[in-house]
Amino acid sequence: MTTKKQVAVILSGCGVYDGAEIHESVLSLLAIAKQGAEYTIFAPDVDQYHVINHLKGEPSDETRNVLVEAARIARGSIKPLSEYATKNFDALLLPGGFGAAKNLSTVAFDGPNCTVEGETQRAVKETHAAGKPIGALCIAPAVIAKILGDVTVTIGQDEGTAQAIEAMGGNHMTTNHGEVIVDEANKIATTPCYMLDANILQIAEGADNVVRAVLEMA
Amino acid sequence: MTTKKQVAVILSGCGVYDGAEIHESVLSLLAIAKQGAEYTIFAPDVDQYHVINHLKGEPSDETRNVLVEAARIARGSIKPLSEYATKNFDALLLPGGFGAAKNLSTVAFDGPNCTVEGETQRAVKETHAAGKPIGALCIAPAVIAKILGDVTVTIGQDEGTAQAIEAMGGNHMTTNHGEVIVDEANKIATTPCYMLDANILQIAEGADNVVRAVLEMA
Repeated sequence: MTTKKQVAVILSGCGVYDGAEIHESVLSLLAIAKQGAEYTIFAPDVDQYHVINHLKGEPSDETRNVLVEAARIARGSIKPLSEYATKNFDALLLPGGFGAAKNLSTVAFDGPNCTVEGETQRAVKETHAAGKPIGALCIAPAVIAKILGDVTVTIGQDEGTAQAIEAMGGNHMTTNHGEVIVDEANKIATTPCYMLDANILQIAEGADNVVRAVLEMA
Repeated sequence: MTTKKQVAVILSGCGVYDGAEIHESVLSLLAIAKQGAEYTIFAPDVDQYHVINHLKGEPSDETRNVLVEAARIARGSIKPLSEYATKNFDALLLPGGFGAAKNLSTVAFDGPNCTVEGETQRAVKETHAAGKPIGALCIAPAVIAKILGDVTVTIGQDEGTAQAIEAMGGNHMTTNHGEVIVDEANKIATTPCYMLDANILQIAEGADNVVRAVLEMA
């Protein structure tokens, strides 16, 4: 039996504009493994809000499923989020990308009045209720704030999103590259990553730091 | 004007079973940045051989374009491979994934009798003719061997692929996780990555090591 800490990672598709941000996702997985923990990847089995042609930056006339596309990042080793059980894990981690704001929630369209996908809401609520830590990167902290309300998080420096988080009942702290905000009472650790104009080294640093903060609370 | 070494990276889609392997791609980009060089991402503007549902591991009835899908890994910052000019770069790097064997070439289906996509062939031939180094991960070394013939490469320990490389006129060296074979005369550096049953830490090590070998020859 392994004694490694177990981290559940929720992906929201595969690609920054309509799914999980790929660099944040892969570098989160790498950070978990580097720090001696193990990951299991989940995604909700729902259609993406839409499909963006990442070359042109325009919507394309296709339908794709969040779980099926996230399986690309997971190399097929992924489970539907409905199978996530808090008791089997020490921590939960949500990388960013527009998928968090379009598929896991509607925050990209509805701001503070957004709704949250059902299994994502359940996973976050149950993990929090069990006193286990949750990490979130990029725009994903806004989803955490929508679900939990009075938590302190960061999405970096974007004023509109920061205001939306405050309107949801959360507290927003401004941060720069690689910085992590830890809400110790709620065991929430967040970092801005590509919500800032970042390069891949800064994403690796942010992923390392947020995973470290999460594992320290696990 | 920057003095950083410039590396062109050729992607073959987005997802291990029908495109570029995502971990190898992202960790190659990270390795390039960590080692003080810069990358520009390219992909051929051609349809994928097919689309694999990565959850089920089965073909799906869709058509996707290699350049458009690779743009997901590149966050939209990608160019058609037809725009690659050797004179603007110090080195060329090809991550793996079945995309190298299905989209950049037909090696997955035709073994030593495979054909190579036109722009991929041009890019590798011109880079080699200019005396600049080429790195390749996973199955991509087989594509290099098909194009250049008498070169020494590794794809790890898969006997069938090793025999195909020998039949193409290449020399195959058996390797384990993270090991790099350097053909100094031809300035070719190769490493097995997910051609072995590897974890993400081993992929990061392989990407670091092959990028280091390439940059030392650049």
